[in-house]
Amino acid sequence: MNSFDASTQVERSTDDPGVSTGSFDGSWQVGNGINGGVVLSTTARGLAAALGDDRHPDPLAITGTYLSASTAGPLTVTAEVARRGGSISSGTATLAQPDAAGALQTRAIVQGVFGDLSQLPDDSEVRRDPPQMPAPEDCLPATMAPPHITESAKYLNNLDLRFDPATVQWALGQPARRGMIQAWVRFPDGREPDPFALLFLVDCLPPVLADFGRFGWSPTLQLSAYIRARPAPGALLVRHETEHVSGGQFEEDVRIWDSEGTLVAQGRQLARTPRA
Amino acid sequence: MNSFDASTQVERSTDDPGVSTGSFDGSWQVGNGINGGVVLSTTARGLAAALGDDRHPDPLAITGTYLSASTAGPLTVTAEVARRGGSISSGTATLAQPDAAGALQTRAIVQGVFGDLSQLPDDSEVRRDPPQMPAPEDCLPATMAPPHITESAKYLNNLDLRFDPATVQWALGQPARRGMIQAWVRFPDGREPDPFALLFLVDCLPPVLADFGRFGWSPTLQLSAYIRARPAPGALLVRHETEHVSGGQFEEDVRIWDSEGTLVAQGRQLARTPRA
Repeated sequence: MNSFDASTQVERSTDDPGVSTGSFDGSWQVGNGINGGVVLSTTARGLAAALGDDRHPDPLAITGTYLSASTAGPLTVTAEVARRGGSISSGTATLAQPDAAGALQTRAIVQGVFGDLSQLPDDSEVRRDPPQMPAPEDCLPATMAPPHITESAKYLNNLDLRFDPATVQWALGQPARRGMIQAWVRFPDGREPDPFALLFLVDCLPPVLADFGRFGWSPTLQLSAYIRARPAPGALLVRHETEHVSGGQFEEDVRIWDSEGTLVAQGRQLARTPRA
Repeated sequence: MNSFDASTQVERSTDDPGVSTGSFDGSWQVGNGINGGVVLSTTARGLAAALGDDRHPDPLAITGTYLSASTAGPLTVTAEVARRGGSISSGTATLAQPDAAGALQTRAIVQGVFGDLSQLPDDSEVRRDPPQMPAPEDCLPATMAPPHITESAKYLNNLDLRFDPATVQWALGQPARRGMIQAWVRFPDGREPDPFALLFLVDCLPPVLADFGRFGWSPTLQLSAYIRARPAPGALLVRHETEHVSGGQFEEDVRIWDSEGTLVAQGRQLARTPRA
């Protein structure tokens, strides 16, 4: 099984339809914990399982607030249905893990709206075109990143991630200071993107502060993902941007376009800057 | 009492510290319901009351998912504390109202992170400057808006709202089609802005689709607000933008700058386009 699916899959309890269990794989580690997008996607899968709604299989808007760093190992998602509607369903879910003493620690609280992307009208009245981007073969693979990046972000090894060279000058000690990083991303085993993968991919690049020469653990306070369309097969263009770093906090805005140039996801998070 | 404060204030139950009650004033009506920013701010006040945490008085990141349209009249906020930390506290809350038959209907579910904006470092390392904007006296007051706007958005009468003339050509039947509306906003009675008012003000302008000549009720699926700084006294510059309208949905991005040019809030919502 694909490593992302293995780490985000959950099994619904036969006793309680609101409860699902799973296990994080340590290969998704970044900084002190498991990648926040993996946490979001896993919790959303638990919420989808609780909704059990074939009419509304796709996450449309999912937000998570992070309470403590997730770790490799077992997890439980406890979900509550808020509303089953005609075109959308909504609910909340909590992801928890046992700590070293066996006490359950809440990692994230999530709220989400689910619908059916294939039922949305196939219009695109207004759109921002995908950015200019060199072809994947002219981009820099994450495996060439300096060790202080790949060691603190092991999950990068789970992806075929190729950076736009113009946006990774920070890796050479010459940050461009524009607040933007973009890359082509796909799973190396050919697993094609889908809406639950997009919930992770809105958090898949290094924190955009790297473009200002600042590295280290940037804990997310809250992360929202809007899934706008089902992605076509192939590599995705993922762009992280920030325009405001102040008070020890920054917003990270993410756009993802699929191989056909369709905007398929938007993400935004409020995070703390790394401690100096 | 200021009309916004009167409609968003809540009183904490003496029996259950997680429960607060209040009442929406009908003057905050827009389309089929009460303005979504007023709902967000009211629910956040109930969550803050449940946290009861003097160390973390300010909303930092608040997200609401909307389940049904709120109406004028009594409301109950039921909140649950998720975590009380050293620098932030978090929790969830639900706002409900009795329907005509007296059954409680959930209007919105909210999750929020609270902290102390005055304790954040006073740095601003990276910032986007406020946009160019004519002086308030050279802008167009909302009271000059055509009746089909002010009748479907009564709450505009509660604000001193002055549109940048270049962004309200839609009111003259000539939409600029740039996906942007901006205005100076303040409370007409001199009530100065604060973080809870900002939770409302990220939803205070007409839906940005008006700039494409599309009017009508645009129900919000999910709305997030990040409060970045305490606003200085005076009028706020509020800008709504969209760059992607597709599949019957659009995102609305909001930035708010205070009278000193500080970015004080960011908002984003996923909403549905009005039915044709």
